[in-house]
Amino acid sequence: MASAALLAYLDDCRTLVVSEIESLIPQNRYRPILYDLVLDYPTRGGKAFRPALCIATCRAHGGRLQDVLRTAAVLELFHNAFLVHDDIEDGSELRRGEPTLHQDLGVPIAINVGDASFVLCLQPLLDNTQLIGLGKALKILQLITDMARESVEGQAIELDWIYHNRRQLRERDYYLMCYKKTCWYTFIAPLQIGALVAGADPKQLRLWRKFATYLGLAFQIRDDVLNLVANEKAYGKEIGGDLWEGKHTLILLQTMARANQKERAQALDILARPRAEKSAGEVSFLFDLVKQTEAIPYAAHMADRFAAKATAVFEEIEEFIQPTTHRDFLRGMALHVAERVK
Amino acid sequence: MASAALLAYLDDCRTLVVSEIESLIPQNRYRPILYDLVLDYPTRGGKAFRPALCIATCRAHGGRLQDVLRTAAVLELFHNAFLVHDDIEDGSELRRGEPTLHQDLGVPIAINVGDASFVLCLQPLLDNTQLIGLGKALKILQLITDMARESVEGQAIELDWIYHNRRQLRERDYYLMCYKKTCWYTFIAPLQIGALVAGADPKQLRLWRKFATYLGLAFQIRDDVLNLVANEKAYGKEIGGDLWEGKHTLILLQTMARANQKERAQALDILARPRAEKSAGEVSFLFDLVKQTEAIPYAAHMADRFAAKATAVFEEIEEFIQPTTHRDFLRGMALHVAERVK
Repeated sequence: MASAALLAYLDDCRTLVVSEIESLIPQNRYRPILYDLVLDYPTRGGKAFRPALCIATCRAHGGRLQDVLRTAAVLELFHNAFLVHDDIEDGSELRRGEPTLHQDLGVPIAINVGDASFVLCLQPLLDNTQLIGLGKALKILQLITDMARESVEGQAIELDWIYHNRRQLRERDYYLMCYKKTCWYTFIAPLQIGALVAGADPKQLRLWRKFATYLGLAFQIRDDVLNLVANEKAYGKEIGGDLWEGKHTLILLQTMARANQKERAQALDILARPRAEKSAGEVSFLFDLVKQTEAIPYAAHMADRFAAKATAVFEEIEEFIQPTTHRDFLRGMALHVAERVK
Repeated sequence: MASAALLAYLDDCRTLVVSEIESLIPQNRYRPILYDLVLDYPTRGGKAFRPALCIATCRAHGGRLQDVLRTAAVLELFHNAFLVHDDIEDGSELRRGEPTLHQDLGVPIAINVGDASFVLCLQPLLDNTQLIGLGKALKILQLITDMARESVEGQAIELDWIYHNRRQLRERDYYLMCYKKTCWYTFIAPLQIGALVAGADPKQLRLWRKFATYLGLAFQIRDDVLNLVANEKAYGKEIGGDLWEGKHTLILLQTMARANQKERAQALDILARPRAEKSAGEVSFLFDLVKQTEAIPYAAHMADRFAAKATAVFEEIEEFIQPTTHRDFLRGMALHVAERVK
């Protein structure tokens, strides 16, 4: 599937999902002080990536849109809760080109909006018992429970690294954090839930999980590479923002591992300080160190490897799902991730 | 039941619940960076009021401790999530005599610990399907879902009042906020869940809810009265702290309603500012206005009325539950709330 067709598929899903989320929002007097704020980020744009993956997997398995749409919307609500809290935790100022919720209305209201967005996930998951039957509804509740636990654990790992300025990490520490923080709620849960709704068997679910894990690792590493090498306008974010923020990426981890003792000490000192206390010269020093240690080509190579593994697993998956637009979308996503790294 | 016996009952329940919470915490490598922090507030002390109410109601109905203990522990985990986030939202510095979690480890980690505490509620509620059967497990999930929604809505009301410095409120606005923020998760959900586990019928559940609502209103108003009139050492909190914080209590609402225009304008100006920007003289002015408008005796009178209504409903409840220690504890709680107001 070509890039334009991928975007069109995402866009179609997004329209469905935003309108489904609106239908899940209580129409009561708390709308202006609470639920409109829950809807703020979802209606600002964004790709609504996670529900699209969920819908595509369900439909690729022959499942029905009406059976999966509500749960797909829950994934976006969970993502929203995570974003609102993550923006406070990272001290982010902008989200999709506008002030973050806590910048706009303060930390207290933003925390509660994140909580509300999470709370709103529960009712539709209970309603699933009527919509798709008890067995599937309980399995989905279990997957969401696992996903939520993996996500807070992944977040705890990263927050611990930031709090202690831990910078000498093993590569496998990074993959574990990424698996828990990115792979689970962005790929594993959406794909497995989509397959579950359509009645996939345990062996099929395991393959989706394997595909999701490789794809998630490739996706995250690719995103971190793009942050440093992309064309700013096309990428849509500030180039080098990760270095300003001191984000724990595979690139920075490799840079620290490959730098000499003196460089490492200097980098550690810069990374210990928040964004506002770093100078442009210091960030340039970090960027030079990244280039000199060739950490970017290494990360790009690892992203390629994970993307290739994802594609290989997808070939196994193609043995049990028919060729449809939905399958093409999923294959396209895997290829797209691989291509953007090169 | 005498005061000492009430405290002993609470203490017994607390021991059981803290050890149950510990058994619900994953024993994995994330314990030091996440789950030990979830356990921080629960092991600092506190009365563990909510699980005790839940256990007592179940047992008063003839239900078994082992059937209700896990869900009672979930109520304390939910309370913990709420406290951790509420402390950030209120800018509180101390919790149970020690620094609040965000004072200790920063806002980012504290937000995630609150999220984790909420996430940990899910698995035991799913495990209930095995423990007490599908029907009851689903009804409890529904009640927890309702409780969580009521709680974030109640919190949204109060945060909106603070954000806009809304001080001219109707009494019924206050009761609604209190119903959603206090009654639901402190009384309605614990009592109804306890009754549900023991197999109470819908009519009995409605009576518990009525009792819980009156008791919750009496409890909250009483607590706000004590904040202004209690003996500091016996009360355990700073006297007048609510005025420093500008907390939206029935007392302050009545004070504003009864003050003249000039006094109201002056009070509004003081209340618009955070604690650190109020002087002792300004808080004295507020306290004098509270006394002069006789808002405290009015609030005490309303707490009495609600406590009396709770006691009247409890008499109806006593028609269908046998006399046991558990029933005595519940009746004692209602009387205790009433007594402390006088």
